[in-house]
Amino acid sequence: MPRKLTEQTNGVYAIAPTPFRQDGGIDDASLDRLTDFYAEVGCTGITVLGIMGEAPKLDAAEALDVARRVIRRSTLPIVVGVSAPGFAAMRSLATAVMEAGAAGVMIAPPPTLRTDDQIVTYFRQAVEAIGDDVPWVLQDYPLTLTVVMTPAVIARIIGDNPSCVMLKHEDWPGLEKISALRAFQKDGKLRPISILCGNGGLFLDFEMERGADGAMTGYAFPDMLVDVVAHARRGEREAAHDLFDAHLPLLRYEQQQGVGLAVRKYVLMRRGILASDVQRKPAAGLSAAAKAEIELLLARLARHDPRAQLAAAGAA
Amino acid sequence: MPRKLTEQTNGVYAIAPTPFRQDGGIDDASLDRLTDFYAEVGCTGITVLGIMGEAPKLDAAEALDVARRVIRRSTLPIVVGVSAPGFAAMRSLATAVMEAGAAGVMIAPPPTLRTDDQIVTYFRQAVEAIGDDVPWVLQDYPLTLTVVMTPAVIARIIGDNPSCVMLKHEDWPGLEKISALRAFQKDGKLRPISILCGNGGLFLDFEMERGADGAMTGYAFPDMLVDVVAHARRGEREAAHDLFDAHLPLLRYEQQQGVGLAVRKYVLMRRGILASDVQRKPAAGLSAAAKAEIELLLARLARHDPRAQLAAAGAA
Amino acid sequence: MPRKLTEQTNGVYAIAPTPFRQDGGIDDASLDRLTDFYAEVGCTGITVLGIMGEAPKLDAAEALDVARRVIRRSTLPIVVGVSAPGFAAMRSLATAVMEAGAAGVMIAPPPTLRTDDQIVTYFRQAVEAIGDDVPWVLQDYPLTLTVVMTPAVIARIIGDNPSCVMLKHEDWPGLEKISALRAFQKDGKLRPISILCGNGGLFLDFEMERGADGAMTGYAFPDMLVDVVAHARRGEREAAHDLFDAHLPLLRYEQQQGVGLAVRKYVLMRRGILASDVQRKPAAGLSAAAKAEIELLLARLARHDPRAQLAAAGAA
Amino acid sequence: MPRKLTEQTNGVYAIAPTPFRQDGGIDDASLDRLTDFYAEVGCTGITVLGIMGEAPKLDAAEALDVARRVIRRSTLPIVVGVSAPGFAAMRSLATAVMEAGAAGVMIAPPPTLRTDDQIVTYFRQAVEAIGDDVPWVLQDYPLTLTVVMTPAVIARIIGDNPSCVMLKHEDWPGLEKISALRAFQKDGKLRPISILCGNGGLFLDFEMERGADGAMTGYAFPDMLVDVVAHARRGEREAAHDLFDAHLPLLRYEQQQGVGLAVRKYVLMRRGILASDVQRKPAAGLSAAAKAEIELLLARLARHDPRAQLAAAGAA
Repeated sequence: MPRKLTEQTNGVYAIAPTPFRQDGGIDDASLDRLTDFYAEVGCTGITVLGIMGEAPKLDAAEALDVARRVIRRSTLPIVVGVSAPGFAAMRSLATAVMEAGAAGVMIAPPPTLRTDDQIVTYFRQAVEAIGDDVPWVLQDYPLTLTVVMTPAVIARIIGDNPSCVMLKHEDWPGLEKISALRAFQKDGKLRPISILCGNGGLFLDFEMERGADGAMTGYAFPDMLVDVVAHARRGEREAAHDLFDAHLPLLRYEQQQGVGLAVRKYVLMRRGILASDVQRKPAAGLSAAAKAEIELLLARLARHDPRAQLAAAGAA
Repeated sequence: MPRKLTEQTNGVYAIAPTPFRQDGGIDDASLDRLTDFYAEVGCTGITVLGIMGEAPKLDAAEALDVARRVIRRSTLPIVVGVSAPGFAAMRSLATAVMEAGAAGVMIAPPPTLRTDDQIVTYFRQAVEAIGDDVPWVLQDYPLTLTVVMTPAVIARIIGDNPSCVMLKHEDWPGLEKISALRAFQKDGKLRPISILCGNGGLFLDFEMERGADGAMTGYAFPDMLVDVVAHARRGEREAAHDLFDAHLPLLRYEQQQGVGLAVRKYVLMRRGILASDVQRKPAAGLSAAAKAEIELLLARLARHDPRAQLAAAGAA
Repeated sequence: MPRKLTEQTNGVYAIAPTPFRQDGGIDDASLDRLTDFYAEVGCTGITVLGIMGEAPKLDAAEALDVARRVIRRSTLPIVVGVSAPGFAAMRSLATAVMEAGAAGVMIAPPPTLRTDDQIVTYFRQAVEAIGDDVPWVLQDYPLTLTVVMTPAVIARIIGDNPSCVMLKHEDWPGLEKISALRAFQKDGKLRPISILCGNGGLFLDFEMERGADGAMTGYAFPDMLVDVVAHARRGEREAAHDLFDAHLPLLRYEQQQGVGLAVRKYVLMRRGILASDVQRKPAAGLSAAAKAEIELLLARLARHDPRAQLAAAGAA
Repeated sequence: MPRKLTEQTNGVYAIAPTPFRQDGGIDDASLDRLTDFYAEVGCTGITVLGIMGEAPKLDAAEALDVARRVIRRSTLPIVVGVSAPGFAAMRSLATAVMEAGAAGVMIAPPPTLRTDDQIVTYFRQAVEAIGDDVPWVLQDYPLTLTVVMTPAVIARIIGDNPSCVMLKHEDWPGLEKISALRAFQKDGKLRPISILCGNGGLFLDFEMERGADGAMTGYAFPDMLVDVVAHARRGEREAAHDLFDAHLPLLRYEQQQGVGLAVRKYVLMRRGILASDVQRKPAAGLSAAAKAEIELLLARLARHDPRAQLAAAGAA
């Protein structure tokens, strides 16, 4: 069983959106296609029930169903977001998905935390709740979560909790934070930790150069993320930037707060992976103008990356 | 079945804390005692799974168990807090507790809402989710929830949703809001609505005079709230203020953000209702100094209100 | 010149409101009366240009005029609030008021600060800006400022900056913070520091027992604050609580966010100190109902404290 | 005097950073060079004392000096940011800069505003304060200011205040907001209004297509903004996107919260406009790694846009 997360984990963990049917139910067929797609394009893992997975819009039973379905279907390690308003619900979900074969869980800090000590205490209690044998990912996403963790606080959390094996890094700006953490390690102040970057991949080009181990994000072309990470790991700097820059206009468009998930689902639908781009309420939909903009971005991207050459949109 | 909430509902709805055992499990015996106690002292209803009921610290199954137990045991109408990060979980809980015999549910706005339209839309979608036949209470608690609703926005929500029958009013300051809503009604701009006041009861003396129908809060002497509401409804102004003022030093002490629940559970334990004052993590405990302060406040209160004459604290 | 603040400072520092004329100009005559009044009732100092002094509503020249006028007129030490969006404006005002004879300045953290290090760094830079020879008061007011400082962070700030001689303590809840800081001192981890409490005085009864040196707040009966502090310092516990409790209904009414200043100015007007209760925009005024409630509270208070026996309100 | 802002204003208004000397003083020579540079590259106006102009770090006298210097030197219309914690300071600055010849002022909402009515009232009072004959720009920047204005609220503000002639649009995401406002105009619900877009220009390609009149932002290549706006106004869609996309990797790098200004000043220094990239405290500086990243971005950009061909960095 090589499926448990470790501090050596690297590559691209795709943040999977949750596909819905027009009637609001979970679209299992699309979820299966998505699961297979991530493996086919070279992702090294999948993360389900993240913020972008509309996890809070699922009830407890649905959330568990989604996690189990992906775990059963995929040979990749699966990380499950278990952030919850309280530790009892966090423990219930974490226990169930680890039993189902998850590789680890991901925990984000609740927005009420302010001081360094509050943050450190929270994660110690979270580990008490889920059990210290469950590998977990620390999510650092201040823009959405409003909780600001300094590199020193992150180091305290990692030091306190041996089961914390990965940082999902999505501070913005965040390049100096990667450098600071890697410097801590060089100075012996921090044990090895995997750093996968989020934020839609908006700074992945430089994040790799600063010492990240890969990406954990949901951009609708995970194949590009895989290639950029591979180029960077092989030291092919120009190739990495060239490919990244070609995608940046679309990637930036997808990386809009609130609207981003609609863009992502739309592109995944256009790529034939999802049957529809339906979201559960509350949701921001795409106007006709927005869809036309995405089509323009895809067409322009296709000149550089053939994977963006899609059949003309139908009723889109 | 007189147990469904209506816009005529009045009196005191006690916000029930959730009693825990030392091992963290739910203390059913204390919960039963608490349920009986509220009826004995004259409460007209009970609210479970509110913010002060540590609802987010329960998992889905526990939450439902607590609600069902109180509903089964009590002859009073029971309101159940169903606020959730998403509508699927809200619907699951609302459906289950209404089937179990709840009188209605209570919904608070999520902290991400900012504009008037976002707020109004949220509650329309919430009603779509739970069904428009479920009587519900709109919770207006900006201090904790960070969502600010003007009287006009509250009136829009009530106008949009016939199943909204009550406002849990706990804006601070909030007296003018009661007056504004009652003035809307006088002008025919708002249909009848029950207004029960929260905020620990800190302004109950004047809230009743401004037109509130009662209280929905968790002060550890609900018997005092019952008497103040009764005095006010009978026009016994001096008596209402005299009793209220005697309790104010303790009430104010209990109405401290974060610490308040610890005070409340401690006093309910000292009154013999709860077996212990345990909270689930994360929780703020009481220091020895704090306990001594509460004992002083109880002793001073006992000179005015014999209900505060308690046997000396043991190991407290 | 005993007028500089030190870590031995104690008693009551009145937070002075800024009196305005009906035409919006500063009412110098009322400001003079207020200055004299504070000395007559036993205050040991005055704080001007605080949040409750409507400082942000004054332009730079007016702010300096108010501070200079009070400094010139009073024999009491005067603290001047110099919080500003940037250090240049802070330095300009601090320099000017210290030259005019102020006893010290008060600095609140800007609401953008989140991490412990950000907070500590901010105050170090503030001291660089104003000069390390200016005695200053650290304002800790999370409810309004949204910046949360642990006792350890406060100790770091005090340790870093010898010119920090006082904490204006108005965390809520805040009793344990006083105990924690005094325990740090006992353990030799913190040098002596004056602690004066704000928050409208809502917990002054217990704050004194926890080790506070007095109050710095603006309750419209500073004479009561003076007496409670004196009783507490003499160990007259019952007398302190009796007087405090008699004022609590009014004090609580005044301690409403936003509305509080209107109540305070109204009562100071009713006591004959201010010519009017005018505030500059944006301001929350008092409705007729609110004024009647204050009159009731004054009448009830007058049974216990003759200082509240005021002539009937005129056109109020 | 064609220098007053009107609802027909268009093109590119450069947000000017404030240049400082190594000793912290204002660098007048750089400020003059910058003023001239903006005119030379085709900007149609300049905005000083914006958020990115470090306005809060200047004291009142310095702020006025900067505004007057730019107004005197330039033949372009100058907009001055007058946002302030209170209306008195706002009026003082607005009056002084309009007397000095400013084209108009810019006002951002304070972060305490929450409800639609609070926002609308605030701007009505601001106009009372500065005088209704001063043309002004409404700044809509939720990411930094935390105030969310719907299109309907913006329309109310514009409807209430004839002197509001421009929207500085920097909501994110914001494309639909432009479309909604233009649709209001088509439906006769909104009078003509100039819309210039901020947000570092991150969506300028599509903002122009949605109906914006230009840009008001501080990207270190305002010449690119000028060209993109010109292309868009002439309907040269491909040319607009090609140029924009070539700049996007650097533009995105500059558009990092907090760090962005350091990047901007560094590039302007590298272009020979500013003598140094010094900021006043508190400030985020650039690490050596960050400077190397910017140099890479400049070198890559230079392949597409010769204006980015700069002499090798010296001590940078």
